[in-house]
Amino acid sequence: MINVKAVSNILFALLLFLCGAMSIPAALAYYYGGDDFPAFLMTIMVTLVIAGSGFWTTRDRSELRSKDGFIIVTAGWILFAAIGAMPFVLSGFIPSYTDAFFETMSGFTTTGATILGDIETLPHGLLFWRSFTHWLGGMGIILLSLAILPLLGVGGMQLFKAEVPGISVDKLTPRIKQTAELLWGVYVLISVLEILLLKFAGMDWFDSFCHTFGTMATGGFSTKNASIGHYNSAFIDYIIVVFMILAGINFTLHYRALRGKPLIYFRDREMVFFLSVIALAILLVGLDVWQNTHHTFLKTLQYTVFQVVSILTTTGYGTTDYEQWSTSSQVILFILMFMGGCAGSTGGGMKIIRSLILLKFGLNEIKRLLHPQAILPVRVGDRAIPREIVTNIAGFFLLYITLFIVGIIVMSSLGLDFESSLGSVAASINNIGPGLGSVGPTDNYAHIPSTGKWFLAFLMLVGRLEVFTVIVLFTPIFWKK
Amino acid sequence: MINVKAVSNILFALLLFLCGAMSIPAALAYYYGGDDFPAFLMTIMVTLVIAGSGFWTTRDRSELRSKDGFIIVTAGWILFAAIGAMPFVLSGFIPSYTDAFFETMSGFTTTGATILGDIETLPHGLLFWRSFTHWLGGMGIILLSLAILPLLGVGGMQLFKAEVPGISVDKLTPRIKQTAELLWGVYVLISVLEILLLKFAGMDWFDSFCHTFGTMATGGFSTKNASIGHYNSAFIDYIIVVFMILAGINFTLHYRALRGKPLIYFRDREMVFFLSVIALAILLVGLDVWQNTHHTFLKTLQYTVFQVVSILTTTGYGTTDYEQWSTSSQVILFILMFMGGCAGSTGGGMKIIRSLILLKFGLNEIKRLLHPQAILPVRVGDRAIPREIVTNIAGFFLLYITLFIVGIIVMSSLGLDFESSLGSVAASINNIGPGLGSVGPTDNYAHIPSTGKWFLAFLMLVGRLEVFTVIVLFTPIFWKK
Repeated sequence: MINVKAVSNILFALLLFLCGAMSIPAALAYYYGGDDFPAFLMTIMVTLVIAGSGFWTTRDRSELRSKDGFIIVTAGWILFAAIGAMPFVLSGFIPSYTDAFFETMSGFTTTGATILGDIETLPHGLLFWRSFTHWLGGMGIILLSLAILPLLGVGGMQLFKAEVPGISVDKLTPRIKQTAELLWGVYVLISVLEILLLKFAGMDWFDSFCHTFGTMATGGFSTKNASIGHYNSAFIDYIIVVFMILAGINFTLHYRALRGKPLIYFRDREMVFFLSVIALAILLVGLDVWQNTHHTFLKTLQYTVFQVVSILTTTGYGTTDYEQWSTSSQVILFILMFMGGCAGSTGGGMKIIRSLILLKFGLNEIKRLLHPQAILPVRVGDRAIPREIVTNIAGFFLLYITLFIVGIIVMSSLGLDFESSLGSVAASINNIGPGLGSVGPTDNYAHIPSTGKWFLAFLMLVGRLEVFTVIVLFTPIFWKK
Repeated sequence: MINVKAVSNILFALLLFLCGAMSIPAALAYYYGGDDFPAFLMTIMVTLVIAGSGFWTTRDRSELRSKDGFIIVTAGWILFAAIGAMPFVLSGFIPSYTDAFFETMSGFTTTGATILGDIETLPHGLLFWRSFTHWLGGMGIILLSLAILPLLGVGGMQLFKAEVPGISVDKLTPRIKQTAELLWGVYVLISVLEILLLKFAGMDWFDSFCHTFGTMATGGFSTKNASIGHYNSAFIDYIIVVFMILAGINFTLHYRALRGKPLIYFRDREMVFFLSVIALAILLVGLDVWQNTHHTFLKTLQYTVFQVVSILTTTGYGTTDYEQWSTSSQVILFILMFMGGCAGSTGGGMKIIRSLILLKFGLNEIKRLLHPQAILPVRVGDRAIPREIVTNIAGFFLLYITLFIVGIIVMSSLGLDFESSLGSVAASINNIGPGLGSVGPTDNYAHIPSTGKWFLAFLMLVGRLEVFTVIVLFTPIFWKK
């Protein structure tokens, strides 16, 4: 049975936290004297009253169980998007609630898909809020993937149960708290570093903050219409590349490295595979771009490195229009979309560790043909992955592909052409942002029909919450007493 | 270690069989007085001399093992395509050996992809041979999938070990022989029935034979440029629909039904799922075609039923240009390509039983989230599928998707646009024939670069032989002593 009272209490607490977070863009809106200040104020006040009184009446000290966890996570994300959308609507800058919800869900899921054609007309408060939703979403994701999902046993994330810092107890709450404090510390630290570097490289403080939010969450919202391409600076490009890579790495590794073990990065197989994929993709795409465009060597390198890292980490920042590249380069980028970042990073997609385990699983199955009796565990480094987890991950892959295919059917039945259907679904479920076709890097999602926007927002959520977390709520067995 | 002598002996025996088979189109070429007779004669004579002397010098009674089996199957198919291509080249009707090999591999793998723009200019001997390669390939596939692969343990085909008629011994040879005789009997019987019906419906004897070959093998080569659309006859369309469905069903079921248990069809879960998929797809595509074209109800039904069955069974015959249909209908057809026929049929694709098991496996993984300790076997009907086999099938799916993705990269790097890359790879690996884009139902494969033709021919083979059978030959472990 669901512990309705305790679940509501936590959700109200999260909303109170949201009010706190929203007070920063509200203050900025006031400071810059923008039209958006009243909208923030009204949203905060109404939410504060409702969430405050709700929180007060639902206090409950009983322990939570897995089912409660699934509901809190999914409902929490939806509530944040639903309320976070209000300032856009109330200020009149995104009059349609559908559009505003899409934009905010895209923010909190660190996707970065936008319905805005002209971003630069937004006032500072809204611009900041838009980017800040990314950063908050990123915080949520680190916690979710390293503290909550391993305990819930979602899609192989149990693998990380033992590795995550924090006390090892079976009760959810104290462990989650500890982990949160340690990993968020790392997240804040790296973010501060990026802000300073971007400022140093020539951005103003406002843009340094906003682009750091977009980078560290592997989100992709920019304050400029031309995204990072706006700055036309190799220095800024490479700073963002480095931080996108950092954001795409398991935060447990950063934590341990900061605790004095920097070599741990290169002992981690997922990380090594992640870097190898980046290197290989840069080589393949780079050669192709080099042959088919008239860029200098350095420009080719700059564009290729940026685009490969931006897509693989599922950030979605752009410095050039990759739809101008050859089909084979686009196909490679498309595959990178699905691989995604490392587990326990803010990156989306299927996650590098899953690709690695699935790859080894496939090779194992070939070997098994020749030695049917042999016991061949899937090994990552010197660690044998338990069969249960391999099965979990195979199931995850299957659901992911099924969802992708269903997504294409839905989007094409709404009238999108094949490439745009494929691109919009891949960009949403993998939390990239820009896709292919009519939702490519130089386009936006404004023209998608309403139903399509709600559906893509749903896919962003499902992808971001590792599929199982959301899908399980749709099974009758979940709601049985 | 590979038993080289015994393997060669069997391959030579297969070539002698090929000479026998080729004597039929040779006789027809002579009868119709076509230019192709000398080409057949020369091919047969040279092959007869080489294979005959080879067979004589390699006689060996030692028992074969699995490794030998993998080599015989793959090498056998390649040899058949390599030599079967000669009459096309020698007669000058397909002067390029690459093209002729592509065409013949497409024939023997029951794919039906063609490089010919104007089919009707071919003389009768070659036309017959082209269709006959389908029928022979279909014979090979029935034997392979029901007698050989279950023993080799490929991709879950072990499931059918107990169900296939024939004596149950561990030695390969006697069992294979028995199974062959029983199932080929069924194959011939159903083929005769179709020939008679097509003749009755208005085709001449020659075309009845050729189109029966294409149907029963789920191949798709026609003797007419407009494929089945040439006849513009609802009667012929529906006859072919019925026989495509029959060809897409496990031949063990036909055998049992003919032995007096006709109800067995509806007790077989794979078959029931197969028919459900057909019904659902006809409904979805039919409604869409009905809304978006100006056909009458009966015409809509006729086109939709034919196209859905033709694609799902991986036949690839056409009566209309489905690229004129809406994107969502094309997406549905595209998914059907991958589902394919039932296991133990002549249909290609991943096979219905695998889709069914993977679907149930995915659902199980969701349930497992809520009951981590529960043991939840995948059930098909009242049968619990062993875990080993589910893992096999998950591995199969993974390899299949990987191959599909690699295929798209290769074809797009050869200069094909995205849709054509996707379409040509899907149509080849699933053994359909016509794909999408520039290799759609009204186009052909002539314009594909040579490398691409060889690569697609390779994909046809890999797909037809259930992936593992071929891929295993590329592993170092296979060649270790």
